[in-house]
Order: sequence, then structure tokens, then C-alpha cells
Amino acid sequence: MELLITYDVDTTTPAGERRLRRVAKACEAYGLRVQKSVFEVVCSDVQWQLMRHRLLGIIDPDHDSIRVYRLHAGTFSGAQHLGHSPPAPHDTPLIY
Amino acid sequence: MELLITYDVDTTTPAGERRLRRVAKACEAYGLRVQKSVFEVVCSDVQWQLMRHRLLGIIDPDHDSIRVYRLHAGTFSGAQHLGHSPPAPHDTPLIY
Repeated sequence: MELLITYDVDTTTPAGERRLRRVAKACEAYGLRVQKSVFEVVCSDVQWQLMRHRLLGIIDPDHDSIRVYRLHAGTFSGAQHLGHSPPAPHDTPLIY
Repeated sequence: MELLITYDVDTTTPAGERRLRRVAKACEAYGLRVQKSVFEVVCSDVQWQLMRHRLLGIIDPDHDSIRVYRLHAGTFSGAQHLGHSPPAPHDTPLIY
């Protein structure tokens, strides 16, 4: 399945900055970073459950926010990009 | 149609900070802000063309990035939210 994951992590404290780095690292393990806080992920349901569990273990639910959109196949390749550095398209799963 | 709009604006200069504010304002005019740089927009094709034109007039294409995902109806309401302050769902168009 295709997931678009976006996040806002409160970085007003050193602990928040650490959470931001950990969230980014967790997302990088599963997906393609297309913007600073936006990842395109192609994965299975089981992989998503693992990722979700990992993310829930990182964030401070009172201060951080993660949104996950489950998209129809092909949505990533049809995304429009305005401005610099559109990422390379990906038509194959990013995790194996 | 449902559009998910995400952006990265280079704010290392005062001009970049101004662009960020203008991009946010342009998006606020058309959609629901669900994170700092993420907007859910429900609009027509014509409205999207107007918005796109406005955004292209704001960004510096060498430094800023906007991504637009055209989603199937109902994707917004099915989004998962981890952490704080999930926004209220919206089932009706935000612009009239």
C-alpha cells in the first residue's frame, strides 16, 4: 500500500529536537523523503503496524503530531511538484 | 476533488520567511491546515488552477518546494492521526 506520512514535532526543547531526529530516522527506514517532514512509503500492512508502533514509541503525544494518509496505488507518481528538486519517482516497494 | 498540499520553504533569509507566510496564507484561503506545512483542500479544478497560479507567483523555484497529491474522495476522513490535536473532520467543501 502507499502511505503518505507527514509530521510536526515540537522542537522548542532539546528533547523535542531529539524526537524530531528519531521520527525522521524511523521514516527514512521505510520510505522516500520528499520534503523535510513528508515521506512517501510503500509497504505492507504488517510493515505499517511495525512502523506505527515505532513512531508511537518516539513521539510525545501532547506535543507532536503525525498524520498518515492511505493512498490509492499510483497517487505518488501522479503528484504535482512546484519548485525545486522533485524526487525521483518510485514504482517499486522501498522495503523488502 | 481532494488535494493534499505540503510545502518546504527555505526560511534562511528574511525573504524566505516572507514567502513562507505568503504560501501559508494562500493555502489557508483554500484549505484546512492540519499541520504547520500541510493543508487538506477540497476544491474544483478551476479553483486549483487559480491556487496553483497564486502559489507559483510566491515561491522561489530554486529554493522552495510544494507537493500536491490528488486524492480519492474520502481519503481525508480516513487519515490516521498519531499524537496531539487531530483537526475536526471536514466532509464539505471548504471553498464555495
